[in-house]
Amino acid sequence: MARTGRRRGSPDTRQAILDAAREAFADKGFDATSIRAVATAAGCDPALVHHYFGTKDKLFLATVQAPLDPAEVIPAVLAGGVQGAGGRLVGTLLRVWDDPVTGTPALALVRSALQHDWSARMLREFLTTQVLRKVVAQLAVDDAPLRTALVASQMFGLIGVRYLLRIEPVASTPAAVLAASIGPTIDRYLTDPSIGVDPPPGADG
Amino acid sequence: MARTGRRRGSPDTRQAILDAAREAFADKGFDATSIRAVATAAGCDPALVHHYFGTKDKLFLATVQAPLDPAEVIPAVLAGGVQGAGGRLVGTLLRVWDDPVTGTPALALVRSALQHDWSARMLREFLTTQVLRKVVAQLAVDDAPLRTALVASQMFGLIGVRYLLRIEPVASTPAAVLAASIGPTIDRYLTDPSIGVDPPPGADG
Repeated sequence: MARTGRRRGSPDTRQAILDAAREAFADKGFDATSIRAVATAAGCDPALVHHYFGTKDKLFLATVQAPLDPAEVIPAVLAGGVQGAGGRLVGTLLRVWDDPVTGTPALALVRSALQHDWSARMLREFLTTQVLRKVVAQLAVDDAPLRTALVASQMFGLIGVRYLLRIEPVASTPAAVLAASIGPTIDRYLTDPSIGVDPPPGADG
Repeated sequence: MARTGRRRGSPDTRQAILDAAREAFADKGFDATSIRAVATAAGCDPALVHHYFGTKDKLFLATVQAPLDPAEVIPAVLAGGVQGAGGRLVGTLLRVWDDPVTGTPALALVRSALQHDWSARMLREFLTTQVLRKVVAQLAVDDAPLRTALVASQMFGLIGVRYLLRIEPVASTPAAVLAASIGPTIDRYLTDPSIGVDPPPGADG
């Protein structure tokens, strides 16, 4: 018997919401996707989306199967102020990725994201809306988008070299040594006044 | 009629050498692979491998379809000395990747490398033996392997954010601005005495 009208709560409905959300986020991006549109596509009431997933942020985190919510980690890392935040950010990143419980699914997410444009878009939306935007919100700096994207480039590269490509000695260097070596890079990207400034003519020699 | 004995030169032989080389490099790594072993696996004379590909470096570059030979670029970039090398390295990297002729196949190589352990190993061998090792050879610094792997992490992350994930504003920032912003990171990784040193206890606070 064909069902008509809106679905009521069931494991099927939860999966239908996830499928509709994944398609909407990948197709239109995080900002242009509404809970209401996801509910319509899934054939259910918006209240049911809120019931299952809470906020749009949480719905998005569920669609990418994020092993943790960056919003729960970032404020603590940045609470000590911008200076020294780099080492704490790198240390936190490595704690998440060195732990198999969170690191294994995170690695699977990045691997899958890099295979297809579709999932690369999901990873970009994840980094920009769930990580970088929340870092920017904590920081009072100019050129915040460029600064945080530069931070993302160093973080993403560290993930790639340590976990995907496993290039030595970075693959097996203790996290604390890496945090001390890479932390000042992050600090500079977040605070140095020369970031984003046009170089003087001929400066690239 | 079944062929016996060693193959003579032909397009088939060239392809057989490439296939044998790809398998050997991925299986045993660059250093443990000899031209002789590749020739044996391809059923031809080692002289034919040299005839088609020249050196083992060149054979390896052919198996990964590298769009250019890093050995032809790195010495010029480092000729001006370590100081300021960072900006020149980033500028050179972006010139190669911004140009569709070299950038498109390079991006295809990285995409494919990230999909499978097998090809990730090839990319790791490429970076370590063809890029990082040649950079180390030009530099007189301590802890060269860690320093160059850290350089690789920033370079790989820049590639990932600008070309794979296309995170703004890094995706569309002029190369000269990125070189000026990221160059000092590379300089610090190559020269700063604190790189690779254990942090004092409690330093990650």
